[in-house]
Amino acid sequence: MKKIKIGLIGFGMIGTGVVRLLQQRSGFLAKRAGTALELAVICDKDLRSKRSVKVNRKLFTADIGQVIDNPEIDIVIELMGGLHPAKEFILKALKSKKSVITANKALLAEAGEQIFRAAAENNVHVYFEASVGGGIPVIKGLREGLAANKIQSIYGIVNGTTNFILSEMSDKAAGFKEVLALARKKGYAEAKPALDIDGIDSAHKLAVMGSLGFGTNLKLKDVYVEGIRSISATDIRYAAQFGYVIKLLAIAKRSGRYLEARVHPTLIPANHLLAQVKGVFNAVFIDGDQVGKTMFYGKGAGQLPTASAVVSDLIDLAGRISDKNILPPVILEKDIIGIKPMAEIQTRYYIRFSALDQPGVLSKISSILARNNISIASVIQIERHRAKTVPIIMMTHEAREKSIQKALKQIDQLRVIKKKSVCIRIETLED
Amino acid sequence: MKKIKIGLIGFGMIGTGVVRLLQQRSGFLAKRAGTALELAVICDKDLRSKRSVKVNRKLFTADIGQVIDNPEIDIVIELMGGLHPAKEFILKALKSKKSVITANKALLAEAGEQIFRAAAENNVHVYFEASVGGGIPVIKGLREGLAANKIQSIYGIVNGTTNFILSEMSDKAAGFKEVLALARKKGYAEAKPALDIDGIDSAHKLAVMGSLGFGTNLKLKDVYVEGIRSISATDIRYAAQFGYVIKLLAIAKRSGRYLEARVHPTLIPANHLLAQVKGVFNAVFIDGDQVGKTMFYGKGAGQLPTASAVVSDLIDLAGRISDKNILPPVILEKDIIGIKPMAEIQTRYYIRFSALDQPGVLSKISSILARNNISIASVIQIERHRAKTVPIIMMTHEAREKSIQKALKQIDQLRVIKKKSVCIRIETLED
Repeated sequence: MKKIKIGLIGFGMIGTGVVRLLQQRSGFLAKRAGTALELAVICDKDLRSKRSVKVNRKLFTADIGQVIDNPEIDIVIELMGGLHPAKEFILKALKSKKSVITANKALLAEAGEQIFRAAAENNVHVYFEASVGGGIPVIKGLREGLAANKIQSIYGIVNGTTNFILSEMSDKAAGFKEVLALARKKGYAEAKPALDIDGIDSAHKLAVMGSLGFGTNLKLKDVYVEGIRSISATDIRYAAQFGYVIKLLAIAKRSGRYLEARVHPTLIPANHLLAQVKGVFNAVFIDGDQVGKTMFYGKGAGQLPTASAVVSDLIDLAGRISDKNILPPVILEKDIIGIKPMAEIQTRYYIRFSALDQPGVLSKISSILARNNISIASVIQIERHRAKTVPIIMMTHEAREKSIQKALKQIDQLRVIKKKSVCIRIETLED
Repeated sequence: MKKIKIGLIGFGMIGTGVVRLLQQRSGFLAKRAGTALELAVICDKDLRSKRSVKVNRKLFTADIGQVIDNPEIDIVIELMGGLHPAKEFILKALKSKKSVITANKALLAEAGEQIFRAAAENNVHVYFEASVGGGIPVIKGLREGLAANKIQSIYGIVNGTTNFILSEMSDKAAGFKEVLALARKKGYAEAKPALDIDGIDSAHKLAVMGSLGFGTNLKLKDVYVEGIRSISATDIRYAAQFGYVIKLLAIAKRSGRYLEARVHPTLIPANHLLAQVKGVFNAVFIDGDQVGKTMFYGKGAGQLPTASAVVSDLIDLAGRISDKNILPPVILEKDIIGIKPMAEIQTRYYIRFSALDQPGVLSKISSILARNNISIASVIQIERHRAKTVPIIMMTHEAREKSIQKALKQIDQLRVIKKKSVCIRIETLED
């Protein structure tokens, strides 16, 4: 099996996440890439600060040439950020026939055209899933998953800081400055949050998505940008009265043969899916002429989600450039050893009993449940009325399927129960 | 430029959509694939029925050998459905070193393991984006976009028929049979809807997603299945009282070293994103250990969305198997000729004026708006109170940015206006 050798530029928060994933999951990743992935060099100007991952110091270099001029390196991962010298490093790496993975949206929004041209000229790849929407595979969606479509519009909530601030202002009827302070405390806003707050970060991401989606070279300077500093709790409240919420949207859409490209606070209908995207989550709503409306949702930032995007790109890219055989779609893992029998699953349950309206019914039901180790979370018992049977509705705490089925069998045999009880499983969908 | 030759098996509704897309968009698709895509043979046992697309009859054959044994064919698209002879045809095509694209979830849920093994043995690809979630690129998400993750859980609303029925029952407090009849009338349910209603279709799709997500061979027989026939308007109403909605969920999740794999009606919190997935839309909610919670949303069926998935797979596959140079990420199109100047965009606006509480203010404002061709959709004017200024809030109909800015400038110069007016754009996000 050929090894793919990787050079990392930038050993900050995201770089650390990537290194950890490559270390902890090397076998898993190699199987999925169809080739071993070897982290061969790490370049950063600061190699002394402590990181939360142990690395053989032999990999460290402060000399960028060890990455971009090193004939051994197949793939360069650029996570240093900023325009310069990131741009020069990437162009040099491409010229040295190395494929590049980058999370650098600012650079792509400024010099994407030049970088993409350099990649094509040198017949190597540029991957940049991590540049938009953290770990959400929306770039892959635009480049590949929706490739048969002419994209009609893209509406993105692509900045977690501003979405957190607007969500909090809305939920707590709080002011902008107060919530910004909270966002800073929680680590959701940086000390100098202007890039986020003023919409520039969203505009960078819009330039990247818009270029892909509309087959054009959309640059930062083409995007109209307005941030959220002027949004007040007052306007959020009035918008709600009209049935709207305010989100910072990154919008790219066709208007005849022209493209609208703008980032600004936007009222959207409160019952729209995008309006449900709360806190630091991101979502991109894309309308394709064939597929119709689609949405991609997830965490738009953070060490793990961003490392997920970088390493998923790496797997894809390594698979494409290695001389391996074609991989099967299902890469078998050994950690799942069987299917859990239905009787053994544990979840919460909704149960509706149809019972005679007699004293003591609830006590009979609940004692059978208790004997089967089923604990009741809440009950609705409808007041007595003229009908012969009354519904009793219960939500249980987590219980075992086997116990529920056994209890229901016993309860349905009670003389006071008039119809087969209805039982529907509940998923709380939370950790 | 090398040509990729395609053989289509099955010229029904989806097949017709694929053929139309290949005809209408050949230049666009060729640029994206990096190679011309030539539809060389169409095989169906019924070649007489009228289709909504014109095809040279020379392409037609009733002889399957013309597709699967034809050395000229590079890629076989299987859209005939059913287990047999689709399985035999696909296996034969793979053995003849042709890559295969299929939408056949039933077959993959039954014989995916065998098909994937045959593909690997013959070093060719199998693509099947259209098998789950129509045009939503969720298979690509699981195979590639989230490849660095250990998937923790998959929760899918993957059957439009049942989701339409449950949504309607919920919105209209209607019974199952009544809504099923409506679904039939609207074309959302087939004459024999058992596969959908009884959850089998969802279980097929869960088997496909579960196999990919958990690196195992999950088959239909491994999935516990319960359909929606027994769901009543009564239970939907009581669930709502507890803050839940009922959805037919396809669930695959880790439970220690075992996998839970089940399809059944499920109560989920009404404020969860999945609860907002209404009508015939589909969504898959995936939790990866690195990326966290993600969701993929869109139309799960229909000619255009499904053809979108098939042809997007085709572009991806053709690019991988042709001997072309590597494509740049942005494939330039000529249909966008410029960025629309901000002054020219048209949208709706929310405006908040801070005005003196005097008679005639509203008339002054609205006459300026009218002179600028801005029409008011709704107004909130707060009752007089002791404050010196009162807010007047307006939503406009669609207007031109230039006109709005001009009108606001004029209004803000009125003696009765005490603060710069607030103006926020509105997107209705509908066609």
